[in-house]
Amino acid sequence: MNRRDFGRMLAGAAVSAAGTFHWLARGVPAAATGPVSYTIRADRLRANLEALAKFGRTPQGGVTRVAWTQPDVEARRFVMGKIMAAAGLDVRIDPAGSILGRRPGQENLPVILFGSHIDTVPEGGMFDGALGSLAAIEVLQSLADRRIETRHPMECVIWSNEEGTHYGRGLFGSRAIVGEFEPGELDEKDEQGLHIRDAVASIGGNLSRIKEALRKPGEIAAYLELHIEQGGVLEKAGIPIGVVEGIVGIVRYRVVVTGQANHAGTTPMPDRHDALIAASQLVLAVREETMREPGRQVGTVGKLAVHPDVPNIIPGQVELVMELRDLSMTKINGIYKRIDARTAEIAASSGTRISIEPTSTHQPALAVPWMREVISKEAAAAGLKTLSMPSGAGHDAQMIARIAPMGMIFVPSVDGVSHSPRELTRWEDTANGCEVLCRAVLAIDRRV
Amino acid sequence: MNRRDFGRMLAGAAVSAAGTFHWLARGVPAAATGPVSYTIRADRLRANLEALAKFGRTPQGGVTRVAWTQPDVEARRFVMGKIMAAAGLDVRIDPAGSILGRRPGQENLPVILFGSHIDTVPEGGMFDGALGSLAAIEVLQSLADRRIETRHPMECVIWSNEEGTHYGRGLFGSRAIVGEFEPGELDEKDEQGLHIRDAVASIGGNLSRIKEALRKPGEIAAYLELHIEQGGVLEKAGIPIGVVEGIVGIVRYRVVVTGQANHAGTTPMPDRHDALIAASQLVLAVREETMREPGRQVGTVGKLAVHPDVPNIIPGQVELVMELRDLSMTKINGIYKRIDARTAEIAASSGTRISIEPTSTHQPALAVPWMREVISKEAAAAGLKTLSMPSGAGHDAQMIARIAPMGMIFVPSVDGVSHSPRELTRWEDTANGCEVLCRAVLAIDRRV
Repeated sequence: MNRRDFGRMLAGAAVSAAGTFHWLARGVPAAATGPVSYTIRADRLRANLEALAKFGRTPQGGVTRVAWTQPDVEARRFVMGKIMAAAGLDVRIDPAGSILGRRPGQENLPVILFGSHIDTVPEGGMFDGALGSLAAIEVLQSLADRRIETRHPMECVIWSNEEGTHYGRGLFGSRAIVGEFEPGELDEKDEQGLHIRDAVASIGGNLSRIKEALRKPGEIAAYLELHIEQGGVLEKAGIPIGVVEGIVGIVRYRVVVTGQANHAGTTPMPDRHDALIAASQLVLAVREETMREPGRQVGTVGKLAVHPDVPNIIPGQVELVMELRDLSMTKINGIYKRIDARTAEIAASSGTRISIEPTSTHQPALAVPWMREVISKEAAAAGLKTLSMPSGAGHDAQMIARIAPMGMIFVPSVDGVSHSPRELTRWEDTANGCEVLCRAVLAIDRRV
Repeated sequence: MNRRDFGRMLAGAAVSAAGTFHWLARGVPAAATGPVSYTIRADRLRANLEALAKFGRTPQGGVTRVAWTQPDVEARRFVMGKIMAAAGLDVRIDPAGSILGRRPGQENLPVILFGSHIDTVPEGGMFDGALGSLAAIEVLQSLADRRIETRHPMECVIWSNEEGTHYGRGLFGSRAIVGEFEPGELDEKDEQGLHIRDAVASIGGNLSRIKEALRKPGEIAAYLELHIEQGGVLEKAGIPIGVVEGIVGIVRYRVVVTGQANHAGTTPMPDRHDALIAASQLVLAVREETMREPGRQVGTVGKLAVHPDVPNIIPGQVELVMELRDLSMTKINGIYKRIDARTAEIAASSGTRISIEPTSTHQPALAVPWMREVISKEAAAAGLKTLSMPSGAGHDAQMIARIAPMGMIFVPSVDGVSHSPRELTRWEDTANGCEVLCRAVLAIDRRV
């Protein structure tokens, strides 16, 4: 502990209305290089994560808990009935189906909100979303155990259908908070013909009252989300806590390369208009132009279809999806312009036509600087090193950022793997993340 | 007509058993640059092609006459009952379902066989196979009309299931002639559960007697096949008749590129093991290495699948089919070795594993030089220029080449298109091909 840390620790100490001395709320700050001092209960967090993982567990060792399906319904019932109830929370379900668990504050102040989601992709893992959700409940349980009162009301949240496997669009619960839906989205049916209205009703939501889910700017004092990194940056750097700078913007483009399908045996090489040759050049150009400048921007071609896709016909058409991500839209647009120029060259040299059209744009969502600072300082106070980094994945936090100060905490993913049965975050790292979340919400409670 | 042609023409003239002077059988040889002199009836050939095209005609203007399906069954009945019957042929169906129409010869000699197929790919055209089949019948009809007797018996043939759309393997009828079947092939069921035995029985074949379809070397004096080129070489060169040097060998390889699937947002560019990046480099390397040396070899990647094939996941695996074709297996093997070396480089630089295994090899089948010479000379005699060329596509002729001298005649495909509703061969070119076929079988009859 250095002198400055000690002074801040004392400044944070206070006596609650119930007379409990708050010392334990932040624990004894340890040296940044020393052992972590926990105020949350790591064993309980682990037990809850393991219990939740049984809902939708697959023979492959993964978790398939797609939003609004039976495993999700049962998992939600378990979390509300067992874990949230044990924490003494006032539990409600909003019209979009998001679960909120409230703990009152001492003053008439806007809420401090934190949480994540518990739905998964098919054959996903047991940490993505679940960690941030159960850690949020653990924070409130820990405050209750320690009889810590806060100035602000505190709410943990489990957002409805974050992954979007069901009905094809994610961030459903968090989009409801800001009222952002696609035209017709609230009148869709799934592949089995189930109307989204009925799917949401099956988890206790009510689309006819969806506007009541809206929150106005100022209603939420701050939003925090703990999540696994889903990349390998923290693990590679050997750093336990990521302080998220923001959630990247994502632009997707549909690319269609049109050549001429022809017989692979009878068409001489110089006479071909092979759409796959042009598409291959484009796939490589996307990578080259993305990496041409320094930074953490990424560019990916993840989806590609060849027509007619038979061995003895020269591909006549290739459709692919190109995706660019960065915290800066200016940078994304610059990369796109370079790729577009390369595309024109490729079309000309291969005798094909190439069309590119943007199909979706998600603006970047930046974490507010003072919350990044709070997270960094509280991590240091717990004895944990931090690294500033973008979130390359989308999260519910990006929607809430439109109406409230937002901050995110990352913990390492082993091998950077997620959305897979191999998804793994070490128990120690789950506890570290939960500890930083707990300290951060209390620091925010004191600050705002 | 030059002196040598005239001398050969006289040498070919003879009196048949029925006393008919054979002069018309070859027609009056025209100058190579003059108008074509026809001995066959172009109008009848066209009418028959148009009548046959009605079987399986699709709204898109193509023909879907998949082997052993209802349109094929009806088309076969029409060809046997109307066209072959009119030509006075002795018609039979062999155990594989191939249709044979025989015209007796004057001497006890092996048969001269010529024909093609009438099954099509889905949404194919009206010339591929149909031309060679109906031209073969027209040749025999023309001989009958003109009361020309031949030394050898003559047989036209319509091979069973050349395209292989049904049951997945083509050249069924011609493979039966040489007894080449895959293990288990004669015990397969189609997608609707129809046993191949019953499918073949539905067209009059009999798999329990399939061995009776076998022909021994020496039983067939010569095999000729007229076919559309299916490429654009003849049209581009402005030459009406292609003299096929041989049917290329085809080797197919299954390539599996294994990288690591990962989140497209959270995985930094330098840390990726993107299977599609490696596959794209490989697709380009196949083209480069194929074109590195002069010649008419071709190399194609026509089929490619990305896994998991979603926009926000870095491709973890790509499977593709690579195909190399040339008249020389030595050349194919040389190209493969260069591609294999490139593959090792690509795997190392992209952090992926790449496996390549040959999945099928069709040996090249060469036309015999004397038959190529006969075709060239008879074309010239009819006033038609010729071009020597490989057949990049597979044909029934390649199987028959194992047991008999083989020759093939090509006619131009407009825009080089086939296996498409856009498949087109001009009526004049169909007549030219039929004329050369007619002259060639008579020349062979005199020669062997």
